[in-house]
Amino acid sequence: MPRWRHPRPNLPLTADDDVEMHTAAPPTPDLAALLPPAVCVLGLGLIGGSLARALRGRLPVSGWSPTPATRDAAAADGLEVAASLPSALRQAVRDDALVVLASPVTTFRSLLRDVAQHAPEVRLTDVASVKAAVAEEVSQITPGARYIGSHPMAGTAESGWAAGSPDLFRDAAWVTCLTEDTDVADWASVAALALSVGSRVVPAEPAAHDSAVARISHLPHVMALALAQVGAQGGALALSLAASSFADATRVAGTRPELIRAMCETNREALTDALDDALGLMGVARGSLASTGSLFKLAEGGHAARGRFEVRGDGMVPMTLSGDDMVDQLLAVGAAGGYVTGLSGAGTEFQVRAWYPDQE
Amino acid sequence: MPRWRHPRPNLPLTADDDVEMHTAAPPTPDLAALLPPAVCVLGLGLIGGSLARALRGRLPVSGWSPTPATRDAAAADGLEVAASLPSALRQAVRDDALVVLASPVTTFRSLLRDVAQHAPEVRLTDVASVKAAVAEEVSQITPGARYIGSHPMAGTAESGWAAGSPDLFRDAAWVTCLTEDTDVADWASVAALALSVGSRVVPAEPAAHDSAVARISHLPHVMALALAQVGAQGGALALSLAASSFADATRVAGTRPELIRAMCETNREALTDALDDALGLMGVARGSLASTGSLFKLAEGGHAARGRFEVRGDGMVPMTLSGDDMVDQLLAVGAAGGYVTGLSGAGTEFQVRAWYPDQE
Repeated sequence: MPRWRHPRPNLPLTADDDVEMHTAAPPTPDLAALLPPAVCVLGLGLIGGSLARALRGRLPVSGWSPTPATRDAAAADGLEVAASLPSALRQAVRDDALVVLASPVTTFRSLLRDVAQHAPEVRLTDVASVKAAVAEEVSQITPGARYIGSHPMAGTAESGWAAGSPDLFRDAAWVTCLTEDTDVADWASVAALALSVGSRVVPAEPAAHDSAVARISHLPHVMALALAQVGAQGGALALSLAASSFADATRVAGTRPELIRAMCETNREALTDALDDALGLMGVARGSLASTGSLFKLAEGGHAARGRFEVRGDGMVPMTLSGDDMVDQLLAVGAAGGYVTGLSGAGTEFQVRAWYPDQE
Repeated sequence: MPRWRHPRPNLPLTADDDVEMHTAAPPTPDLAALLPPAVCVLGLGLIGGSLARALRGRLPVSGWSPTPATRDAAAADGLEVAASLPSALRQAVRDDALVVLASPVTTFRSLLRDVAQHAPEVRLTDVASVKAAVAEEVSQITPGARYIGSHPMAGTAESGWAAGSPDLFRDAAWVTCLTEDTDVADWASVAALALSVGSRVVPAEPAAHDSAVARISHLPHVMALALAQVGAQGGALALSLAASSFADATRVAGTRPELIRAMCETNREALTDALDDALGLMGVARGSLASTGSLFKLAEGGHAARGRFEVRGDGMVPMTLSGDDMVDQLLAVGAAGGYVTGLSGAGTEFQVRAWYPDQE
């Protein structure tokens, strides 16, 4: 595979991390050819509404929400809104559209029954923050769907149609799931969609995704909730002294509890493992502090780990993937901390441009 | 006590929290009269160096550091630097100066022996992040010193003389310690110092301070260290997906391990209690997640607690304290989440202006 040096491309971090961003390239003609013929977004909250806006002008987009007020607001903003879920799905079949499940994950079972009835072989993806459980539901309820699980790692504290922004996905990681059975052409159309809205595409197996997000998203929510309570138990004096370390560490405890629960409870198994790891480290530190008075091990280990987080994405090199073991190559890129920034091809022959940690 | 309404004065939060700040008033003639005749700062790192700069032009300031390069840098910036620790302390006695211990808390035992030898009845304060242990050391080693423990809740990621800024303490909480034996005149001179550099003064008993900071500062460090490790254990995929929730929650794990240890290990008892509370909440949540699949209790409790943090300081009213139970009144203000913004008086008669949560 060809390799060449590039001036220190970092993984994009959040804006306040103040690092140079590696912005995804604007869609190329190659990429446009891989987009699905149309997109039908089911659920028009922050993510669904942002996706509909981001795709406007690139391909035909329609949508549907179970909430009449949301449908009215989206229609007033110019979105083509279906009159009912069955009509949305039947139209998707006629258009060969990609159906995007963008409502809360707890609603998927019901939606999938409609998919099975009205669009059993449709192109299908979702944007939920857990992937193995959704893949399992899809295979049970509508096994004929051409399903590629996905998860754009983007969000704000806001929610609802009005909060949506066409720029929400720019420079965000967008996980796209693959297994050994995946049809690369189906994956390519979902990956092309994510690339076309400015995301970097991270290929991953569903279980690997769930384990990763349990550690870097769901566990931080659980720990923020616990810390917020321990702080408040200190009373008014403690809260009046709390400064940026407490404010930052508890920020996500301000997220609506039902959203935190939907995310964490759906990823119960992986989150339990991550929680056990955290409880183990904190329990050992507690024992060490109480017996010898030392926090040496936790302080050194935690500081080194934060250092690894801070340099992730340093020393990446671009590469091009091709060949008939594409699923394995893509999964290797994601597992190594790499990501996809472009693709071209058709049928079973694709060329994928990716950034990959330099092994030298 | 007189009370009146004021348009929603918030406790100052960190700058990025984007709330209106209640800025301390500039020093008044009353306040200037309460300042000590001079200040001698022992330890010229971030806090000591910032304090020396903030006081410049207000009263005579001198300093000393055990590190020759630091002494040279401070002298080059115009600070009067003592040739040795004994000469710094003897000069402090001649000037009736307030001696400020601003070096790492692990050096205090040695410094206090010099205080006992060269300035046994000097005005004395410190800026360490633990207070009961330091008060105990002072009472053992130099019991004649007129000691008032203090803790400015200010800092940056930087350290050393060069990192100092005269604005470091502006709008920060500055804890000043009181016990039933405290001479209010000694407290008033330390409080005047803190007010004169723009801090809001929070009166507290040493043990109450230690318990509070264990919960809102030391525990956040411990949890950040643990979370950073659990995230990194997820490998390159997990780190590449980590976004703002992980970045914010692990930020303080980037602090130098020896600084975290000095802070946490010195406050071992209170931190162990706080850690036990966190382990209890997380352990119960883990059990609930694994057995019933629900995070209801933690999600609701943690969200409500974060809400209490976000509204701390709302609905404060100004009041004036006076009378001969001043220690009790001051401690009541701090315990309720209030703070001192001004004072005047002399001898045993002081008038203290404070903000206090509205009880109505």
